[in-house]
Amino acid sequence: MTGDTTRSLHAPRAAAAGGPGLFITFEGGDGAGKTTQAALLEQWVRTRGRNVVRTREPGGTEVGLRIRDIVLHHRGHIDPRAEALLYAADRAHHIATHVRPAVARGDVVIQDRYLDSSVAYQGAGRVLDADDVRALSLWATDGLLPDLTVLLDLDPADARRRLDADDKPFDRLEAEKEEFHARVRDGFLALASAEPERFLVLDARAAPDELAAQVQDAVTARLR
Amino acid sequence: MTGDTTRSLHAPRAAAAGGPGLFITFEGGDGAGKTTQAALLEQWVRTRGRNVVRTREPGGTEVGLRIRDIVLHHRGHIDPRAEALLYAADRAHHIATHVRPAVARGDVVIQDRYLDSSVAYQGAGRVLDADDVRALSLWATDGLLPDLTVLLDLDPADARRRLDADDKPFDRLEAEKEEFHARVRDGFLALASAEPERFLVLDARAAPDELAAQVQDAVTARLR
Repeated sequence: MTGDTTRSLHAPRAAAAGGPGLFITFEGGDGAGKTTQAALLEQWVRTRGRNVVRTREPGGTEVGLRIRDIVLHHRGHIDPRAEALLYAADRAHHIATHVRPAVARGDVVIQDRYLDSSVAYQGAGRVLDADDVRALSLWATDGLLPDLTVLLDLDPADARRRLDADDKPFDRLEAEKEEFHARVRDGFLALASAEPERFLVLDARAAPDELAAQVQDAVTARLR
Repeated sequence: MTGDTTRSLHAPRAAAAGGPGLFITFEGGDGAGKTTQAALLEQWVRTRGRNVVRTREPGGTEVGLRIRDIVLHHRGHIDPRAEALLYAADRAHHIATHVRPAVARGDVVIQDRYLDSSVAYQGAGRVLDADDVRALSLWATDGLLPDLTVLLDLDPADARRRLDADDKPFDRLEAEKEEFHARVRDGFLALASAEPERFLVLDARAAPDELAAQVQDAVTARLR
C-alpha cells in the first residue's frame, strides 16, 4: 500500500494570543506550590484592577468535564493514543471557547498546567512520542502558547517530603516512581531552556512571598 | 515567541494490518448502498467459513459510544478542532481494541466508513485542512489502512432520488447542500485515484447482485 503522501499534521505557527490580555500558565510537579502561587498572583492582579480568569485542564468547560469523565471513570483499558486525543480535544475546546475570548477582552488568564505538562509527563512515560504530543496540542489550540509560563522547579525528593508533611494523599514513591518524577523534572527544564523568553524558572524551595514577588515582576513586564 | 521546533505530528508509515484476516471498508455518500453491500458481503464471507466482524464509527466501542454522545448531544457549540480530535479518539480506541485484534485472529472486518470519509467530508466542508484530518487519523490508528476499500460512487442527484423513493428522512437538498455533496464525491474519487491498489470504485447505479459479485472478486483476490 502506498499513496501515503500526507503524513504530517501541520501545526500552525505557535505564538502567544497577542490580545490585550495575558495568558499565564503554572507548571511543575505535584507539591511544587502551583496552586499557592496561582492564588497569590490572582489576588495581586486583581489589586491592579484587571479581571482574572483562573482555569485548568482537563475539565475547564462542560465538554471538558464530560471528556474527563470518560478518561477517569471508564472501567477498563483506554488506548493511549485515544487518551492523548481526548485530552487534546478538551484542550482545543477549552482554549477556543474559554481562554482565547478572555485574552481578547483583556482579562488575565491564570491556568494550572498546559501543554508543557503534557509533553513533560508523556516524555517521561515514554509510551507516546513527546514531540507528537506537542504537535497535537499545538494543532488543537491553533498554535496558542502562553505569554508567560512559570515553572516551579523542585527536586522530586523535596516534593515528596512536602506532600508527606502536608498529609496529602500521596503514596510514598517507590524507586521507579521517583525515577519517573525525575524524568518529568528534566523534561520541564529542557522545555524551559528551549524557550527562555516564555519561561520563568523558579526554585520552588524559596519562601512563597519571595516567589510571588518574582512572578509579579515577570507579569508586570508583560502587562501593558 | 520562538522555540517552535516540533510542529509536525509524525504519523507512522501507513499500511494494511498484514494479519491473517482482512480489513475492508465501504465508502460513499448516503444513499449509495453501503449497508446493502456490507450485508451481502458479510453473508458471502460467512459461507466461505470465515468469521466476520461488522462495525462502524463513531460508536463501535463503549468508549466510542460515550464520545459519540458528547459530539451529538452537547447543547451548544463544539470547537471544530475539538470535534475532529474526539472523532480521532474514537477511531484510535476502536481500531486498537476492536479492529486490529480481529484481523490478528484471522477475522474479516467489514466497516461502514473510515478515514476516507473523514477526509472527503472535511475537505468538502473546508473548515479544517483535509490533509491534517488524514494525518490525525493515521496517527490515531498507528497508520492502519484497509486491505480493501469499496467506493460506491453515485451522483448526488441520483442519491437524492433514491433516498426520496425509500421515504427515508432526508431533506431535499438545496443548491448549497448539493454542491457540498458534489465536493464530497470528488474528494472520494481523488482519494481512490491516489491509491488505486487499495480502492475498488464501483458505479452504485448497477444492480446490487452485480455490485456484490465485483466486491466478492476483489475480496477473493485478497483472501489467502
